[in-house]
Amino acid sequence: MNTAAVLCIGTELTRGEIINTNGPWLAARLTELGFEVRAVDVVDDDPERILGALRRLGAAHGVLVCSGGLGPTSDDLTTEVVARALGVAVVRHEPSLESMRRRYEKAGREVSASSLRQVEIPEGAEALPNPVGIAPGYSAALGSCFLVVLPGVPREVEGLWAEEVAPRLRSRVERRSFQIRLRTFGLPESIVGERLQGLEQAHPSLTLGYRATLPEVEVKVLVRGGDERSSREQAHLVADEVRARLGDAVYGEEDDTFPEVVARCIRERGWRLALAESCTGGLVAHLLTSAPVSDFFIASAVTYANSAKTRLLGVNEDVLRGHGAVSHEVAAAMAEGVRRVCNVEVALALTGIAGPTGGTPEKPVGLVHWAVAFPGGTVVEQRVFPGDRRQIQRMAAFAGLALLRRICLDEARHTPAAPRVV
Amino acid sequence: MNTAAVLCIGTELTRGEIINTNGPWLAARLTELGFEVRAVDVVDDDPERILGALRRLGAAHGVLVCSGGLGPTSDDLTTEVVARALGVAVVRHEPSLESMRRRYEKAGREVSASSLRQVEIPEGAEALPNPVGIAPGYSAALGSCFLVVLPGVPREVEGLWAEEVAPRLRSRVERRSFQIRLRTFGLPESIVGERLQGLEQAHPSLTLGYRATLPEVEVKVLVRGGDERSSREQAHLVADEVRARLGDAVYGEEDDTFPEVVARCIRERGWRLALAESCTGGLVAHLLTSAPVSDFFIASAVTYANSAKTRLLGVNEDVLRGHGAVSHEVAAAMAEGVRRVCNVEVALALTGIAGPTGGTPEKPVGLVHWAVAFPGGTVVEQRVFPGDRRQIQRMAAFAGLALLRRICLDEARHTPAAPRVV
Repeated sequence: MNTAAVLCIGTELTRGEIINTNGPWLAARLTELGFEVRAVDVVDDDPERILGALRRLGAAHGVLVCSGGLGPTSDDLTTEVVARALGVAVVRHEPSLESMRRRYEKAGREVSASSLRQVEIPEGAEALPNPVGIAPGYSAALGSCFLVVLPGVPREVEGLWAEEVAPRLRSRVERRSFQIRLRTFGLPESIVGERLQGLEQAHPSLTLGYRATLPEVEVKVLVRGGDERSSREQAHLVADEVRARLGDAVYGEEDDTFPEVVARCIRERGWRLALAESCTGGLVAHLLTSAPVSDFFIASAVTYANSAKTRLLGVNEDVLRGHGAVSHEVAAAMAEGVRRVCNVEVALALTGIAGPTGGTPEKPVGLVHWAVAFPGGTVVEQRVFPGDRRQIQRMAAFAGLALLRRICLDEARHTPAAPRVV
Repeated sequence: MNTAAVLCIGTELTRGEIINTNGPWLAARLTELGFEVRAVDVVDDDPERILGALRRLGAAHGVLVCSGGLGPTSDDLTTEVVARALGVAVVRHEPSLESMRRRYEKAGREVSASSLRQVEIPEGAEALPNPVGIAPGYSAALGSCFLVVLPGVPREVEGLWAEEVAPRLRSRVERRSFQIRLRTFGLPESIVGERLQGLEQAHPSLTLGYRATLPEVEVKVLVRGGDERSSREQAHLVADEVRARLGDAVYGEEDDTFPEVVARCIRERGWRLALAESCTGGLVAHLLTSAPVSDFFIASAVTYANSAKTRLLGVNEDVLRGHGAVSHEVAAAMAEGVRRVCNVEVALALTGIAGPTGGTPEKPVGLVHWAVAFPGGTVVEQRVFPGDRRQIQRMAAFAGLALLRRICLDEARHTPAAPRVV
């Protein structure tokens, strides 16, 4: 049976206190593998109802992936209930206990009685070592259903999926579809959709999917039918066409992130980078340093107050007074200042009004100026971003990174970016 | 029966193509009204499986709210299936047809045959006029279950809920529960659980819930049974006991965030703040500037490279060479340096090894030193955090903020923090 179901366990989910991201994430991964997912259910921390859901979904589907309820506290009941469904006892998984001991030792903590519950699994189940956290996942045969049980922490779900679950499930499905995810930034979802019009009509076995996660838009190219090879070939053909239609807006594939792609561009130029941030408050630095970047990233001066712009970056007080902190002139002076102070080749600066207050008719909330200073000069751009504080900060950070990327790409193509020196 | 379930219908949900936001949203609203939500299920656009889910959830719950599948396209099957479950025919709802006609006329569109499907409801059901879109919702008695069917567009769900659904459901629930969410930082989930042992035994109507979202642990105090007033009183009693057992680890309630609470502490002291970040790469500044903080936050110098520590903060090159960048001495020099350069009362600095590479036997990945320089002196702390780069950065950022908070609280209590001046 190529059908699958997902069961997420937790009263915080049935009470709507947190959004269930594991459910759709697991459903999407199962779909990618070629399963037909027919149910994504959530049940609260009640043993009878968990048992009922396990039996119902296990009887109807070839694969059932459960998530949640493997923690140390009294409301974590999943393993107990799964053992009942399987008709076996609960046993301690010694290798996981050992790795928990080592982990705790490193942190100077004792293994408490309650934490022992996390390393228990149903007797006879195959343990799936957790590469990220403590509680192991496990798999077992629930009647004719292949049951996989995972913790509830999304990062642990993702780590276990990649290392332990996906390889086991891949062999259980007859793969007939192929999917390529293209990552884009810079075009709104409606424009992306318009530019790709007609593709589905031209390729009957193609389904295009769109997913907007501010400020990006992901395009999913899914080809079904035929065998895996023909699906893959057609998916690559379509992906090339998508790239041609969307141009530089397509920055990567699959799990690429925009900051990583920009980091790669800067590395390829052999430049060192410094930042000066005001309205983004350190977000650009945080996005870049999510991966190791000490080979080229020198510093970010998050100069929130005007006094800091002057003291740390040497921005002239007259320029601040004359044009205001949110201006072309100050963005350029911040970029050039941090480039000089840190002695680097390229610098990005951002200054703006993230809100919710502080806007005026001339300078509304959402107005951001950003500048890149590099060996070819200084380029300044501006925009009024819509949305709330968080959205404005995120859009501005991505826009600044996009300018960095464009300048790197232009340099690589020997087409200097027509610097507008302020 | 005070129990409720939510059923979301759509293959785009079982395939994980979009995140199911209606499910948790409806669950949260039902919970607020006082229902005990026991299931939030998703089923694909298959009439037999929709029928099965309706019958199963309708038989087990007092209220069932469905969402999705009321649109004009061939995969919108909900009303057809609900009518089968009720054993009635499908009829056109004339007032909704009229309002659709008016709407389309205004937009210069014709009412097509397929759009007629949107204004059909099961015979005998009570139509719920849609204040936002075209398809009406409806309610009906499915056996002893009060069934509500809504469209899938989140804005329409929200509009219908507020105007039509909530008023009808409010009279159907006897409110008997009360919940307080306490937010904690600084103790691992297993320790929190241990310290609260015995509370549930002492209060039979109490359910404690735990939710770990790195690096925080939320404790939910839920009291059920009795009337609302007695539940509220008991919940507050228990919350006080939880606070007493967990001490300063409890930093707030409900939707408080740790950075906001720390910001409040600094504000209350009347201090201005500057940061110097190395391994956290701007994360502390980003966390703080998620809310407006320009009244006290001056700058963060994200000095990633050693050269930046010297150039921006004046950290002595000999100290860097002698002790290494990841040391008590450099953390203290960074804090004191940024305090001086930015001319502020209090400064926090962090330096460490976020990994995945760069560790040595003496200075392993995860080692972080952080320092707070304030009018009373300079306090330095250190720890080896477990986990990957992202976790280490997050734990370090919170640990630094926690030291800031403790120093503010100690100052407020006139018990100086026994500064360890380096």
